[in-house]
This record gives sequence, C-alpha cells and structure tokens, in this order.
Amino acid sequence: MDNFWITDKPIQVNDCIRKVTHPKAGAISTFIGIAREFTKGKQTLFLEYDAYVPMATKQLARIGMEIKQTCPEAEIAIAHRIGRLEISEVAVAIAVSTPHRDAAFKASRYAIERIKEIVPIWKKEHWVDGTKWIGNQKETTSYENKIPTKEEMH
Amino acid sequence: MDNFWITDKPIQVNDCIRKVTHPKAGAISTFIGIAREFTKGKQTLFLEYDAYVPMATKQLARIGMEIKQTCPEAEIAIAHRIGRLEISEVAVAIAVSTPHRDAAFKASRYAIERIKEIVPIWKKEHWVDGTKWIGNQKETTSYENKIPTKEEMH
Repeated sequence: MDNFWITDKPIQVNDCIRKVTHPKAGAISTFIGIAREFTKGKQTLFLEYDAYVPMATKQLARIGMEIKQTCPEAEIAIAHRIGRLEISEVAVAIAVSTPHRDAAFKASRYAIERIKEIVPIWKKEHWVDGTKWIGNQKETTSYENKIPTKEEMH
Repeated sequence: MDNFWITDKPIQVNDCIRKVTHPKAGAISTFIGIAREFTKGKQTLFLEYDAYVPMATKQLARIGMEIKQTCPEAEIAIAHRIGRLEISEVAVAIAVSTPHRDAAFKASRYAIERIKEIVPIWKKEHWVDGTKWIGNQKETTSYENKIPTKEEMH
C-alpha cells in the first residue's frame, strides 16, 4: 500500500509521479486538489481535513485496484492531506500512468470521483465569519461543527 | 509567454504546476508525456525531439488562449522538451488550474490533443535496429531520416 497514503505533512506531487513512472508508461495524468480561497463568493481562510485514517488508506488502495481491473497496465498513486491547510496547499494528489494517454485521463478522473464517494475524509471550512464541517466529500451531509462518527461515515 | 516554453533541459513538472497555482484555483490537472520503452512490441533506446522553436512556442501559447476562450478562469502552462530523451524522461508537461475540476480535466486533455495537431515538433525514434523520424505529431507522415522543412510542417 506504499502508493496510497494519508499525511499531515505537505504533499509533494512529484512523489506520486515518481511512484508511477516506469519504462512501459508513456502517459501520466495527475489530478491535484488545492485549497481554494473563494467558494460561491465566500472567502475561506484555511481548511482543516480529518480522516478515519486506516479505512481511508484502505479505500484509496481499493480505488487503485478498481482502476487496475479496467486497465491492468495502469500504475496509480494517491496521497491525501489531513490537518490544517493554507490556501493553495495540496489537499489531494493523484497520479496514474498508462502506456497511452486516453486511459490515464480516464483513470485519474475516476479516482477523484471515487475518493469523494467512498473515502472517509471530511473537511472543515474556516471562513472569516465562522466554521463548518463539510460532512462527506459529496457535500450532501453537514455534520454541524462536529466530526462524524465512524457509523455516520458508512 | 512565460508559461509556454520549449527546452533542451529536463522538464520539472513542478515548474508548470507552480505557474498555475493561485488562490482562486481549486483543481489542477496535469498531463505528462514520457519516453516509453516499448511501442507495439518494438524497443526504443532513446528519443530525439526537434522543433521549429519560435513557431512551436507561439503555438503552445495559442493553445493556452484557446482554453481561456472556453474557460476564462483557467491558467495554463506547457513545456515541451527537445533534444535527446532517455526512457522515462518527460517529453511534454501540461498543467491547467481552474476553480473546479471538470474544466481542468477537459482543458488538459484538449491541450495535448491540440499540441499533436498544431505544434511543429517532431520526434526521432532510436530503436535497437534503426531510427526513424516520426514526422508530424499525429504520426500520419514520415519524413524518412530527415527533418522536415518549415514548409512541410505547415
């Protein structure tokens, strides 16, 4: 599971890229989610991410396996940050290598959508005028100032 | 045009990522083309790229402008390598940032397809048993051991 990790340290995108680089790869698609200052006109000061780490790591690896089922030649690496993130810091980095580019683009897109569906990571927005825990990654549930229980995440 | 360049030095993908990172961006999609060892079962020893540099740089910038016409909030950076490339070295790196991810994925895909259509860069494959100039980037024309003239590229 070396290619799938949760960290409270700044993510180096190159670490993901390096893990998927090999002689049979011709294309690498990466997706990087960074902390954005403005969302629907509202200013974010910083973000805070928390995760149920053992499950989150396992789910990231599961996404990698799902991609390999469709594209056995793909190599995948995914890192997700937790803790406090300043504006423009990397929250998530995904790198997928494949022999040809079409599969790489499709797989990195698939990975970020699946992260939002099945990985227990949640985020707290710190605005100028308050804070809010954004419950699940699909933003369909709010946990109103508290971290959800494990049960609520599943 | 600082965001669009042709270089005979190794490309650092982070240089492209840094150029498109800013507070309004929430998503960065990158595409990296790397020198692949095997193509249709044939082993490549190394690659050689050449370009009509002033025109190629201008065309990369044009692709950036095309993306901004569709998505004015996008920031784009593209670097293309020329000269000799060892296996797994970066031939091209594209980074696109946007507020939200859908536009970033679409734009980086668009950029690599357009590079192959309109940028005068050509490649020489060095195989175990010979070499061949791959004329245009669509690989529809072979220039048989010579670099095409400027006229042939247009």
